[in-house]
Amino acid sequence: MKKNLAVIGYGGQGAWHCKQALSSDVVNLVGIYDIREIRREAAKKDGIFVYDSNEALINDEKVDIVVIAIPNDDHAQWVIKALEAGKNVICEKPVEMSVAALDKMLDAADKSGKLFSVHQNRRWDVDFLAMKQIANSFDLGKIINIESRVHGSRGIPSDWRCEKAHGGGMILDWGVHLIDQLLQIFKTEEIDTVYCETTHITNKEVDDGFKLTMRFKTGERAYVEVGTYNFIALPRFYMQCEKGTALIRDWREKAQVAKLKAWNEKEVLPVQTAAGITKTMAPRDEITIDSYEIERPVSDVHDYYRNYVAAIDGKEESLIKHSEVRRVMKVMEAAFESDKTGVPVKFDETK
Amino acid sequence: MKKNLAVIGYGGQGAWHCKQALSSDVVNLVGIYDIREIRREAAKKDGIFVYDSNEALINDEKVDIVVIAIPNDDHAQWVIKALEAGKNVICEKPVEMSVAALDKMLDAADKSGKLFSVHQNRRWDVDFLAMKQIANSFDLGKIINIESRVHGSRGIPSDWRCEKAHGGGMILDWGVHLIDQLLQIFKTEEIDTVYCETTHITNKEVDDGFKLTMRFKTGERAYVEVGTYNFIALPRFYMQCEKGTALIRDWREKAQVAKLKAWNEKEVLPVQTAAGITKTMAPRDEITIDSYEIERPVSDVHDYYRNYVAAIDGKEESLIKHSEVRRVMKVMEAAFESDKTGVPVKFDETK
Repeated sequence: MKKNLAVIGYGGQGAWHCKQALSSDVVNLVGIYDIREIRREAAKKDGIFVYDSNEALINDEKVDIVVIAIPNDDHAQWVIKALEAGKNVICEKPVEMSVAALDKMLDAADKSGKLFSVHQNRRWDVDFLAMKQIANSFDLGKIINIESRVHGSRGIPSDWRCEKAHGGGMILDWGVHLIDQLLQIFKTEEIDTVYCETTHITNKEVDDGFKLTMRFKTGERAYVEVGTYNFIALPRFYMQCEKGTALIRDWREKAQVAKLKAWNEKEVLPVQTAAGITKTMAPRDEITIDSYEIERPVSDVHDYYRNYVAAIDGKEESLIKHSEVRRVMKVMEAAFESDKTGVPVKFDETK
Repeated sequence: MKKNLAVIGYGGQGAWHCKQALSSDVVNLVGIYDIREIRREAAKKDGIFVYDSNEALINDEKVDIVVIAIPNDDHAQWVIKALEAGKNVICEKPVEMSVAALDKMLDAADKSGKLFSVHQNRRWDVDFLAMKQIANSFDLGKIINIESRVHGSRGIPSDWRCEKAHGGGMILDWGVHLIDQLLQIFKTEEIDTVYCETTHITNKEVDDGFKLTMRFKTGERAYVEVGTYNFIALPRFYMQCEKGTALIRDWREKAQVAKLKAWNEKEVLPVQTAAGITKTMAPRDEITIDSYEIERPVSDVHDYYRNYVAAIDGKEESLIKHSEVRRVMKVMEAAFESDKTGVPVKFDETK
């Protein structure tokens, strides 16, 4: 039987949850509430039941799951109220702006005995799944360096996401996804340091982009970059491994792989560039390299809700673990500290 | 009248200088010396006169210019001996491995009254010239961030370039060119910090790649990356400016430019990706962006010798200035320090 889902907030993400729920095989949309009349009117026009208040929504007995899709600084109070009202809760990302604040939510979740999850929907992005598949297959051996870039040219969406008080800025907006994705690849490797530089090209108050490096104790390097003032985009994913390199140019494209067959570096013939010769840039050929593409993995973001509902019923383990959400939050906190101090921040996995 | 040029060292670079000199309109190749018999035999086979020793070469009265193309740790002694013998001297890059050592050469050059230059031939590379042209034209406004990458997959050339004692490693080999190129774009902006991480994938003794960031006091950021274990290459040049972005995919290709016509970010329509919606990655169209290519600039590396000879004759100013060579050396020294300490190093332009 489908579970009844209600959504607090009917902005871009709230409306997306409603659309997902309406086409879901595991949840049933029962209604929304939004503090802005214009959004409530929009929901009514879309044929969605509108509650009289957030309180009315979370106290409705028939609601099994409450989705929180409101500005970040209001997450905590409504997550905790909904948990205390006995509801299972899904919170939009970033779940909070600090580890201390997140811990209060996690405590409330523990006490309630209900299932609390964060909407890390970008674990279902096809580009990420392709990279994860290559990493997990060990077809290219151990990862040396992975780089994940989201380059856009539209600045920060012009709403509360521009404002610090609401938890705006790109580390919290896109960073939370991209860090989470990479930590799905590096689940067991311990982070040694986090280094981050932010940009403030179109916004002084919050970061409109950043470059973040995680170095692992086992030597791997994971890099996340978001830019919102990039009129040409650099490739979405780039991964150097012991036995080759993989690249995804654009989130709509297939992964390209160059796999090393033979190292064979004794007799490299230099190539002639305009102003000199170079062995470093001498190209390889098919005798030493296999070049191929990887088919785009099949992905269905409805699996997020499917897993969530199965986890409520005790049939599956929740895919979005509290420890994972907390680890991402810790990395973001370290990133803000690094950006402020200008140096890499030591990371403690045990705290 | 052409000036007479002799070359110490007949390895890859020495042979290249000979070839250049043989087709030059300003210099005339008179001979070489190399301490290895196999290289001397090769030169003879190539129809080039071979001196009996380095001493014989630098003391030959008819020689006007001595080119030093030997391992880095032997540069100083032969540069200084040739200057003291009254010759004009061109030294291969990296001229030295420390600022202190370079200063001894510069002192010797000052005392000799002869023209001492470093072979920064990659100032004539077409990819760099295209980027510099865009930067200097101010067509895209002020630079925000420029990234210069050389990605190869052939490791370090398997000779003395693998060894620390000879000044091996990629910071000294390619870094010296790429830093020099960027500092030709940022001639007057003061460097605030230098941050550098090296890689040691195929070589433990010296760096086989590195990622280096220079931050300027005026806010610009210049990034240099060399990789020798990259089986797919990221674009050669990437530049974000106030009014657009420029990219050169490969040193053989034209520069692509996306120039902003109108910011117009009020009503961005989100795009649907596999697992969610995004405004950040929403594409632009020709109403707000002009996309075009820049023709490849014309370049002739013979201009290096032409300028050098004209500078000897007092007809032109030397394009490769001692202060520039020293600034690049200082950046490399700061890069090694940063890599060792793990933090960005404060840069002092006045020292």
